[in-house]
Amino acid sequence: MTEDQFDSQLADCAIETEVFLAAHLATLDAPEHLLAAMAHGALDGGKRLRPFLVRLSASLFAVPHEKSLAAGAALEMIHCYSLVHDDLPDMDNDELRRGKPTVWKAFDPALAILAGDALLTEAFALLSDPRTHPDPAIRAELVLTLAHAAGPAGMVGGQVLDIEGETSPLDEEAIFTMQARKTGALIRAGVEMGAILGGASPAQRSGLTRFGTAAGLAFQIADDILDVTATSHALGKTAGKDVAQNKSTIVARKGLDAARQVLDGAVANGIDALLPFGPSADPLRALIRHFAARQS
Amino acid sequence: MTEDQFDSQLADCAIETEVFLAAHLATLDAPEHLLAAMAHGALDGGKRLRPFLVRLSASLFAVPHEKSLAAGAALEMIHCYSLVHDDLPDMDNDELRRGKPTVWKAFDPALAILAGDALLTEAFALLSDPRTHPDPAIRAELVLTLAHAAGPAGMVGGQVLDIEGETSPLDEEAIFTMQARKTGALIRAGVEMGAILGGASPAQRSGLTRFGTAAGLAFQIADDILDVTATSHALGKTAGKDVAQNKSTIVARKGLDAARQVLDGAVANGIDALLPFGPSADPLRALIRHFAARQS
Repeated sequence: MTEDQFDSQLADCAIETEVFLAAHLATLDAPEHLLAAMAHGALDGGKRLRPFLVRLSASLFAVPHEKSLAAGAALEMIHCYSLVHDDLPDMDNDELRRGKPTVWKAFDPALAILAGDALLTEAFALLSDPRTHPDPAIRAELVLTLAHAAGPAGMVGGQVLDIEGETSPLDEEAIFTMQARKTGALIRAGVEMGAILGGASPAQRSGLTRFGTAAGLAFQIADDILDVTATSHALGKTAGKDVAQNKSTIVARKGLDAARQVLDGAVANGIDALLPFGPSADPLRALIRHFAARQS
Repeated sequence: MTEDQFDSQLADCAIETEVFLAAHLATLDAPEHLLAAMAHGALDGGKRLRPFLVRLSASLFAVPHEKSLAAGAALEMIHCYSLVHDDLPDMDNDELRRGKPTVWKAFDPALAILAGDALLTEAFALLSDPRTHPDPAIRAELVLTLAHAAGPAGMVGGQVLDIEGETSPLDEEAIFTMQARKTGALIRAGVEMGAILGGASPAQRSGLTRFGTAAGLAFQIADDILDVTATSHALGKTAGKDVAQNKSTIVARKGLDAARQVLDGAVANGIDALLPFGPSADPLRALIRHFAARQS
């Protein structure tokens, strides 16, 4: 597929996810300020890469886009809640995200904590809703997969390792472990959720898990490279903050060239894992290349 | 049933829940400090009233105790996460909980935010685990029920209303709405989760939902009364903090006598809802009376 086709598909998915999330938030019988803070944290921002992963992975099994939209939106709510909490004064103390004030800055820290909690909880309400998938076995497996990826053995655990790495530098292996949890787990979960929606065989699931792991690694290394090579304007968030906060990254530990080699290796590994899927996996191939080439 | 029998059953459930939660945390492949903070927030404390509600409600349908333990523990994890986040400096700024330092005080605010997020997420991992119930339809409904009760339309929404009530006093109706969400929703969810595990008929479920709503109201009004009548030592947490924080409660709005009348009405209403269940609901009757009579 051409780069234009890829960009257009990614943009379509972002718009559909945005519309879905806005409509879903509008259905909630919740206090006005809470909904406003949730919307601030979840709407009008982001490339929606994770829902796109769910969509592309589900598409391998001929699942129509509208049937994977809710699962993608639930995954995005988890991603958004993690940003809302990450930005808090007691965490990264960040005031700028996607070119806008962060939730705690636009509202206050207490409401940001609660809006994050609400997005996190609502993601599981959405996944377990019969409208997301008629088969309860699929719904329960989506919940289990996302909860494992987002929880103490996944994303939250990675955030703890990341914070610990600021005061006692991590070695190379510990950095990979931290990043596989902090960022990789949700990206892999996106690919796996598509496989669950599509009724993948164990072998297909295993191949997609391998791809998802490689995609998560590629995404994070590219992010670390951008932190030192891009501007805050291009990123829509504060650049150079890894260095400022003494974050443990492969770039900091091994330098830019070595990081670029890891990135290339991850892309090759991810593409190799897609071999059994033939040309239908071209969009996933384009996606991992996009992760590696992104400028923001 | 006698008071001694009730106390003994409640204590048994608390011990079994404690053992289950400790064993479950020990299975998690998560960073040591995160597990320690999660354990601090979830273990060695509380009467485990919510798991006891799940157990008693499930027992109406002859579900053995060991089959409702995981669902009760998941509900308790949600309750515990809410306390961990509530106590944060940016929220209630509380240093004492169940006679121990709060999680942020024992560790730090960042780890308390993440430990709360981890307990919240892990609750859904546990509910969706096939070991919790072999039928995925039951698991998915447990997730949906708990997520609705804990999310923006439930507990988190109630916390937002509670905070707003500190600066602009709530009227009587708004106080009931706030409390029904903040405390009532999880208590009702406990009763409903037992009904789901037991395969209750719609009529049975509806009666138990009515009981759960009344039990939640009784619990909260009793809590508000205790805040002004008990000591910090008896409560194991700071007494008088509703008044100090200008919280909107029925006690503050209408006085102690009126609050006690509401409490008596809720108990009568809850007991009335149990009529179709006959003597097998005696422990639930004892529980709502226990809520009303508790001294700590």
